[in-house]
Amino acid sequence: MTELARFSINQMTVKQLSLPELADSCGRLGIPNVGLWREPVQSYGVDATAKLIRDAGLGVTTLCRGGFLTAIDPAERAAALDDNRRAVDEAAALGTDTLVLVSGGLPAGSKDLRGARERIADALGELGPYAERHGVRLAIEPLHPMYAADRCVVSTLAQALDLAERFPAHQVGVTVDTYHIWWDDDAPAQIARAGAGDRIHTFQLADWTTPLPAGVLNGRGQIGDGSIDMREWKGYVEAAGYTGPIEVELFNDGLWARDGREVLEETARRFVEHVIR
Amino acid sequence: MTELARFSINQMTVKQLSLPELADSCGRLGIPNVGLWREPVQSYGVDATAKLIRDAGLGVTTLCRGGFLTAIDPAERAAALDDNRRAVDEAAALGTDTLVLVSGGLPAGSKDLRGARERIADALGELGPYAERHGVRLAIEPLHPMYAADRCVVSTLAQALDLAERFPAHQVGVTVDTYHIWWDDDAPAQIARAGAGDRIHTFQLADWTTPLPAGVLNGRGQIGDGSIDMREWKGYVEAAGYTGPIEVELFNDGLWARDGREVLEETARRFVEHVIR
Repeated sequence: MTELARFSINQMTVKQLSLPELADSCGRLGIPNVGLWREPVQSYGVDATAKLIRDAGLGVTTLCRGGFLTAIDPAERAAALDDNRRAVDEAAALGTDTLVLVSGGLPAGSKDLRGARERIADALGELGPYAERHGVRLAIEPLHPMYAADRCVVSTLAQALDLAERFPAHQVGVTVDTYHIWWDDDAPAQIARAGAGDRIHTFQLADWTTPLPAGVLNGRGQIGDGSIDMREWKGYVEAAGYTGPIEVELFNDGLWARDGREVLEETARRFVEHVIR
Repeated sequence: MTELARFSINQMTVKQLSLPELADSCGRLGIPNVGLWREPVQSYGVDATAKLIRDAGLGVTTLCRGGFLTAIDPAERAAALDDNRRAVDEAAALGTDTLVLVSGGLPAGSKDLRGARERIADALGELGPYAERHGVRLAIEPLHPMYAADRCVVSTLAQALDLAERFPAHQVGVTVDTYHIWWDDDAPAQIARAGAGDRIHTFQLADWTTPLPAGVLNGRGQIGDGSIDMREWKGYVEAAGYTGPIEVELFNDGLWARDGREVLEETARRFVEHVIR
């Protein structure tokens, strides 16, 4: 089905499916790509996952996620860098060129956003060359400002690009995810900036629905259910030269409580309806 | 107590206190200013409130809030403008020169943030001269981007100033509230811009604590409990020329469940400890 040619389903959207179920369902629905997460991949085995996905003829658009690079404590920091090198290794083994990075929040007791952002830059300086040697690009994901304290001190595309542009584009770029940036009137200009520098390493979709649930983690809306004009954002990344896969990544307790195959089919249908047609 | 000279307690922080209890408690604690809300003031009576506050020797730093100016439907829009004119009247009657505006979210079914922001500008063109005639300034409050869909399409100080600067500063300025802007690395520059244009009409504080509660409305942290460096933000507004009152406005289910006088005393103490000393 040609309308799904650019579609990628991020594994978290249907985390109730095992990896074999996911691969099988993608085959049945004509879904050509998946985005994978480290934890389920590690549980199934990295090599076993790579073989499963390869045998199913699926592309792997991203591995989620590395990052959490804001620790001050030297031992914590070294452990984070080690873990990110393993994430690069896993991405390479899975056959994806893109590792998504969630930068990390403020260390306990700290109020210093600027300092935390600088420590991310330092870490990228160590990880970028390592990733390049393995054929993997790091994709800094700005997360919505509501996560600035506890999850990701990089809150806008402008901040992500300020970090990324200190390094070559084939080492460090950005993740453009509608959920995190849709409110930002500067984001279209930043997408153009990212495209001009060849730094749009992945494009992800989720819709914005309210009310937000407690903890604000698992309320990402199904495509078409919320406030975001998906075609508009697709237009921005395309005008910036991005013609790659479009990944739908939803964290949603309501979707997780349903039959995974049904959610997968619905998500593909919504993608065609709200993004492609 | 001179350390409280610039302190103002926003009524919502201790909404469990009646207006007479609030006035009495402020007197006992040496708190010189209050920020008021329309609903409790209307319940007590606008003129009765004005007399109560005046007799207690308290200043009224702001009235919260007007706004909700994004409706498309002509009847809804006319009703909103009428209501905002009443809010201006109430502000004038209470003796405050500042009406805080929360702009409003997207109308049902709309995904057009830009259009909503333009309708706010249109409304300000009608309300600004009316406010001026009553000696009241409108203070556009950018709300945290997590409210962009359902509460306030103005998410940054830059957006608020882009709107405000279409009008004279004595008609339209901005509210600088740490809770909404602390994540934004562009905010210090925007505070300087606002100060240069004499558009910092009020400065409010709340701290950022996590996890956020469901609906994300009533999780504003007590000063000192969260991730925001209050002295840093006070430094930005002072460097921009603002030397006016500093209002603490917390919406917090935990604080509301406690004895209001105890919360008021704690808030004044935290203000001195984390903002003044």
